[in-house]
Amino acid sequence: MSTFKQEPHKLLVIPGPIEVTDEVLYANAHPSMSHVSPDFIPVFGDCLRMTRQVLYTADAQPFLISGSGTLGWDQVSANLVEPGENVLVLNSGYFGDAFTDCLRTYGATVDELHAPFGSAVDLKTLEVALHSKSYKLVAFTHVDTSTGVLSDAKGIAEVVKLVSPDSLTVLDGVCSVASEEIQMDAWGIDVVLTASQKGLGTPPGLSILVASQKAVKVFETRKSPVTSYYASWKKWLPIMRAYEAGSAAYFATPPVNLIYAYNASLTAITQKSPSLADRFRLHKEASARIKSAAEELGFRQLAVDAALAANGMTALYFPDGLVASDLLPRLAKRDIVVAGGLHKDYKEKYFRIGHMGVSVVDAQRDDIDRVIAALKESLAEAKASKNV
Amino acid sequence: MSTFKQEPHKLLVIPGPIEVTDEVLYANAHPSMSHVSPDFIPVFGDCLRMTRQVLYTADAQPFLISGSGTLGWDQVSANLVEPGENVLVLNSGYFGDAFTDCLRTYGATVDELHAPFGSAVDLKTLEVALHSKSYKLVAFTHVDTSTGVLSDAKGIAEVVKLVSPDSLTVLDGVCSVASEEIQMDAWGIDVVLTASQKGLGTPPGLSILVASQKAVKVFETRKSPVTSYYASWKKWLPIMRAYEAGSAAYFATPPVNLIYAYNASLTAITQKSPSLADRFRLHKEASARIKSAAEELGFRQLAVDAALAANGMTALYFPDGLVASDLLPRLAKRDIVVAGGLHKDYKEKYFRIGHMGVSVVDAQRDDIDRVIAALKESLAEAKASKNV
Repeated sequence: MSTFKQEPHKLLVIPGPIEVTDEVLYANAHPSMSHVSPDFIPVFGDCLRMTRQVLYTADAQPFLISGSGTLGWDQVSANLVEPGENVLVLNSGYFGDAFTDCLRTYGATVDELHAPFGSAVDLKTLEVALHSKSYKLVAFTHVDTSTGVLSDAKGIAEVVKLVSPDSLTVLDGVCSVASEEIQMDAWGIDVVLTASQKGLGTPPGLSILVASQKAVKVFETRKSPVTSYYASWKKWLPIMRAYEAGSAAYFATPPVNLIYAYNASLTAITQKSPSLADRFRLHKEASARIKSAAEELGFRQLAVDAALAANGMTALYFPDGLVASDLLPRLAKRDIVVAGGLHKDYKEKYFRIGHMGVSVVDAQRDDIDRVIAALKESLAEAKASKNV
Repeated sequence: MSTFKQEPHKLLVIPGPIEVTDEVLYANAHPSMSHVSPDFIPVFGDCLRMTRQVLYTADAQPFLISGSGTLGWDQVSANLVEPGENVLVLNSGYFGDAFTDCLRTYGATVDELHAPFGSAVDLKTLEVALHSKSYKLVAFTHVDTSTGVLSDAKGIAEVVKLVSPDSLTVLDGVCSVASEEIQMDAWGIDVVLTASQKGLGTPPGLSILVASQKAVKVFETRKSPVTSYYASWKKWLPIMRAYEAGSAAYFATPPVNLIYAYNASLTAITQKSPSLADRFRLHKEASARIKSAAEELGFRQLAVDAALAANGMTALYFPDGLVASDLLPRLAKRDIVVAGGLHKDYKEKYFRIGHMGVSVVDAQRDDIDRVIAALKESLAEAKASKNV
């Protein structure tokens, strides 16, 4: 093991990128390696296998592709939907809008069910929609990073299976994988797409998507050609299968260093303490601490109900009379970096705190205490300066 | 400056990824930063500006997007060509085939001029083709990584400007940027696309594309919508302009750590010794040394003519009676990692050596000597064992 220590820095508690361990960063500084080296192939293969473990799936097909999380939408839109086919998007914020935009770019006919701000689409509404029309695919954002709203993944999958068993259920887990429990096989989720820089605790740059065998079959039996080149599973499926089987194949150079980093983080998540189940519990506990501390200080959450609030992030309205510039620079002065608002209609009115990964699972760190203390001090200072 | 030293490792001399400096790897291990942080914005902005410098362009528009070099083809195909438009590809190997495949995926009508194996398309053939039909875009691989063949970028651009001035000239520089001189403005190249892990001396994971203002205008005046989401300049252009102007904008999370690494490498390339001009000269010198040493040992190059041989890599036929398994493992035993063949029709018959970046510009290193010595010893050993 190396003695590498990252530089001192402000604590990054935005909803991704998140704080990354020294181990993971050191892996990201691995000497250059050939992408077809016999030393590298099992590193890539293990990433595929461990990605499955995080999602509790035995046989779904992971895709690890150089790109942002956004590329996952292209993968779904280009490979699983044919032009003119119907898709239903459960829209709970900014990322629902964007996924819809992506699906339409590739020719899907998209209907959206819009949740009220701070809320998720309710299951009854979903059920009615599924009865009224046949959908190839139902997509939802598990945690909308713009609002911190958590959708009921298990419930959604159940309704889809019951009312429209042929539809594919697609979970956008960019802000939920490894911070929220996702039982891909048990719940019947067909696609989980995510990125490396949130719950998975790795620098950004990796589009991670896992497709059930049912989804792979839908892809393999599509009638029209895939209209993307870089996002085409026709190109990537043989590559992923080759690396997992222990041999190299080439379509595009993988982000070798980032794969080492992802491997280091996945190893910690799947093989070290805490266990995966404990990891989810620790996220819930840290989230509860932050949320109750914020409420005690008079902050109100965007999520209208506790059951609708994510466990890896918290979105809070500024108290009356205060704006972003009153609070965020004061937090930064205390070395705490949070994020501003993102949802187009409300972005001036709230801010967001991320609490994922090492900041919540490493008992040696006091990140959550630091965040709560800084929030308290900054709020008091802001109120005093504005006579609120 | 840090005292970070990368782990001892085999010398990686494939045509990308290449050896990366400690400084660049250390930057890749930067603590997590927000992609919209005021500290990060100028790092990204400087990458855009320095990318221009490397290509000798005053005002072309760089795009830095999380992805493999391959994504550059999607960017060209999706943004600059509309379905049914004519494209001419000068095909000098594997990467010409692939670029053609990508263009057709997005609906382009592609004609190919195939160069004989080991050669580039000659300018006279290009001229005739341009007289016979009108092309929206002419694309060529500057250095085909599968063969080490160098195309005459300046000459191609001249012919296009003379015969078909409205056509866009697109240079695939994945294996040439920063190892071969490219005068984008002076020569009239409209698009240069590349990746981070070759001459630019950074780990893989960044699609780097630079578009002339003429190309940007062609994009902005296109009639049909862009059919890719992730590769759409409609999404990315405002982002690149914002970061360069000193403010953040969001479409997809950039690969923050890799941007730090790319910044470190670009800083060395554009602001430190050797100068950019000297860098190209040093690549030529190292290339000449390797090529002449290989020829003295009895190896023959794939490139049929010295003027057609790249300066950042060398592709060599195995001598009669020897195959890859005779030579490559013996090089690896001497800690030298070279690459096998890639071109579909000839891949068992040759191997490739990369000589780019720090391996050729850092006078403190003896990488080229080590490669030559190992090649000599390995060849002698292989011949002896096979009685060749």
